[in-house]
Amino acid sequence: MKSFQSKPIWRIDQNGKSQSEDTLAIEEPLEIRLHIKGQSKSISITMRTPGNDFELAAGFLFTEGIIKSKDQIQSIEYLKTWNPDQENNIVLVRPAEGVDIDFQKLERHFYTSSSCGVCGKASIDAVKATGLKRIENEAFFFSPEMIHRLPNTLRESQNIFDQTGGLHAAALFDNQGKLLNLCEDVGRHNAVDKLIGKALIDQQIPLRQRLIMVSGRVSFELVQKAAMAEIPILAAVGAPSSLAISLAEEVGMSIIGFVRDQRFNIYCNDQRIK
Amino acid sequence: MKSFQSKPIWRIDQNGKSQSEDTLAIEEPLEIRLHIKGQSKSISITMRTPGNDFELAAGFLFTEGIIKSKDQIQSIEYLKTWNPDQENNIVLVRPAEGVDIDFQKLERHFYTSSSCGVCGKASIDAVKATGLKRIENEAFFFSPEMIHRLPNTLRESQNIFDQTGGLHAAALFDNQGKLLNLCEDVGRHNAVDKLIGKALIDQQIPLRQRLIMVSGRVSFELVQKAAMAEIPILAAVGAPSSLAISLAEEVGMSIIGFVRDQRFNIYCNDQRIK
Repeated sequence: MKSFQSKPIWRIDQNGKSQSEDTLAIEEPLEIRLHIKGQSKSISITMRTPGNDFELAAGFLFTEGIIKSKDQIQSIEYLKTWNPDQENNIVLVRPAEGVDIDFQKLERHFYTSSSCGVCGKASIDAVKATGLKRIENEAFFFSPEMIHRLPNTLRESQNIFDQTGGLHAAALFDNQGKLLNLCEDVGRHNAVDKLIGKALIDQQIPLRQRLIMVSGRVSFELVQKAAMAEIPILAAVGAPSSLAISLAEEVGMSIIGFVRDQRFNIYCNDQRIK
Repeated sequence: MKSFQSKPIWRIDQNGKSQSEDTLAIEEPLEIRLHIKGQSKSISITMRTPGNDFELAAGFLFTEGIIKSKDQIQSIEYLKTWNPDQENNIVLVRPAEGVDIDFQKLERHFYTSSSCGVCGKASIDAVKATGLKRIENEAFFFSPEMIHRLPNTLRESQNIFDQTGGLHAAALFDNQGKLLNLCEDVGRHNAVDKLIGKALIDQQIPLRQRLIMVSGRVSFELVQKAAMAEIPILAAVGAPSSLAISLAEEVGMSIIGFVRDQRFNIYCNDQRIK
């Protein structure tokens, strides 16, 4: 399965206009379906970069609170259809026998319900209702020196895969600052779902001894996904939003932003940085 | 309505750890509802930065093919509820009398339907079915010199609003390279919807004599939105995806990427750059 493709382009620089080649990140829809009681039900369609699709499906179902553990999954496979164009674009997840999927919950909006309203506080309440636990203050620490090294490590590892300049990255680090895994995608929420989905399949959830680093900004949705995996520290090259910080404060996650040029900001729960 | 807020933080740099203040972009859910036949129906919930919410709602309804013109809108207002926390988080759009909203269409996924499958080609077919027109080759040109100046102009204008480092920007330029309007949001699709929604409300659609510049990468969704407004050139600081280019080729839009450091790439329809 290809994640990037070549494209003839025109390059304009100080030497004028010339023909050249560029490498584009592939963006294709992925439909995630759940098979239950003899029926396959469409749960989500996301635009993603092909690759690690089973991890993406597992991670999405886990971070949205639909599947709780690897044990709850019987199988993940591509659904074959008559149309060759959509080969490998539909992933079918079969829950293990006896696993009860709350279809009504799937029908509800993820961020809100008519009972709790539409506001930041209601959004936090809604994701807490999916089973978000408070991240306990276990012995997991990062030194400033280790944090300063994160962006370079991320970039060096990303270079192996990312020939396009167009992909978001998410990576897991251990408490020695060692990079354990990295996933890339045109969608930043997909990069995080792939990363957490791989950990789920490898039965490493909860990730209480891990730091997650993302290449972009920190949104509410990214904090939600990391919190479902009980990751204690989220670091980012970019800035966090107000609601991302509110949710992190609520669940006890440390948020570090603007990790670049030998500096960074700690937005909440600084006790893990020392 | 506030778009950013102050937050006490710890700053770590070469001088060690110090207390400081940072400005966060506000992220709050916005629900867009359509009022029709005596009922209000929820169309979308998006995480957005408050500000230009009516433009966002108008732009979203237009770029998704639900509303065709300003004439089709009778009014846009905030829906007041008993809950003060969600003040200004629900926007109610009343279509003009006689405007026929296809509710079945709203129920369908935007990128696919069971009849056309799940693949890039089907995604393009699905958005074309919402009323996407081919962008005709009118007399709209940009010189390389004008394109080189775009990032600075964007950044200077963005600085006025963006104290946070955490916002995506989208801006419209005329054929003299003059910036006409700029919108910002934590979500890049929202920034584009606000910009196009403002043009819709000002009755300036179609935008056949405009260039749109975005601060990030070019996804399929951004090309779709720009194409609905018939914008002939989309320029970006970042890279485009494969499917973004496929759609732009299909509708005749020029895509320019990596506009930075006195260089850029033209990915398709180079006839407008000379």
